[in-house]
Amino acid sequence: MAAAEAIELLVPLEVYVSAGLHVGTHVKAKAMMPFIYKARPDGLYILDVRKADERIRVAAKFLSRFDSPKMVVVSSRQYGQQPVEKFCQLVGSKSLVGRFSPGTFTNPKLAYYTEPDVLMVTDPRADSQAVIEASVTGVPVVAFCDTNSKGPFVDLIIPANNKGRKALALLYWLLARQILRERGELAADAELSVTVEEFEAR
Amino acid sequence: MAAAEAIELLVPLEVYVSAGLHVGTHVKAKAMMPFIYKARPDGLYILDVRKADERIRVAAKFLSRFDSPKMVVVSSRQYGQQPVEKFCQLVGSKSLVGRFSPGTFTNPKLAYYTEPDVLMVTDPRADSQAVIEASVTGVPVVAFCDTNSKGPFVDLIIPANNKGRKALALLYWLLARQILRERGELAADAELSVTVEEFEAR
Repeated sequence: MAAAEAIELLVPLEVYVSAGLHVGTHVKAKAMMPFIYKARPDGLYILDVRKADERIRVAAKFLSRFDSPKMVVVSSRQYGQQPVEKFCQLVGSKSLVGRFSPGTFTNPKLAYYTEPDVLMVTDPRADSQAVIEASVTGVPVVAFCDTNSKGPFVDLIIPANNKGRKALALLYWLLARQILRERGELAADAELSVTVEEFEAR
Repeated sequence: MAAAEAIELLVPLEVYVSAGLHVGTHVKAKAMMPFIYKARPDGLYILDVRKADERIRVAAKFLSRFDSPKMVVVSSRQYGQQPVEKFCQLVGSKSLVGRFSPGTFTNPKLAYYTEPDVLMVTDPRADSQAVIEASVTGVPVVAFCDTNSKGPFVDLIIPANNKGRKALALLYWLLARQILRERGELAADAELSVTVEEFEAR
């Protein structure tokens, strides 16, 4: 990294834009105000892609330092499920997709009880039960947060479109690549063996 | 940690309150809204101490995973200097107190150039030059943020009074203790050899 100049984006800006990574919702939540770049004439709030890019790097630094099987990744909404499954295959973490059963992180008597060291969340609104249980048990929470996402239970916010099929595929693909690079399992300029398309929900 | 129940605070609530950890400013910044508990009749905004407590834990988890000499801790304002120095002595990190020289993180030609892996900030407003330089070079930023602190350059916010002498002493003392516990250099119930009072600016 050339320290004297601003860092490059992880992928060209066009790639972010064509995946709609910057496209938010019609709702502007307080916690997300610092990441909102502008409102489009049609009322959609637009996120700052550069901030998403920077936070993917920071999140990768953070997540790569945990024991991978102790990272749990959740997505109750459908478009996040394939990206989460692919991501977990690549980085060796545990996926929890579909409905999140209450007590998963808090009730040791349940058969599906699990005690993560860190939680990665696709959508804090849809995945609120997981976020709350992690928060109650002191587990750090990293999440993709859209313009309508509420704080403050998310410790590390990655501001991005967490609804779109293409956006979610790109987000998890980039996060996987960056985590493997941080771990040294992938060279800094090497690419994943899996394409972004394979991360996309059908 | 008993997973089935809410975690205890790192110190009793009275200790937080008597250090004024929850006392904010008369300004409510957008980024800090999720952490603001209420406004006092005199117009001071009050922070949620439980959130500060939780974020100190998360920050310690994060910071403890970096190579300690590669963590830089800054405080340009006076009341933060003694806490930062003590903190750095205990955890083995690098302190940068007093005026932050522009280019410290960005200009490799300077004699005082340094390339941190992570930055810990006392007050993002007073230490804005350090925050901006870290952000530009992709260095994760953890900061104590008061009710008037601006986002979005801080990656991990610890919402707390970052102005008071006693509050800053307690914050850095707790963060040091928690980092050493996370590293396994201090048992989970062991105390630091240094008192909170020794962290206080004179």
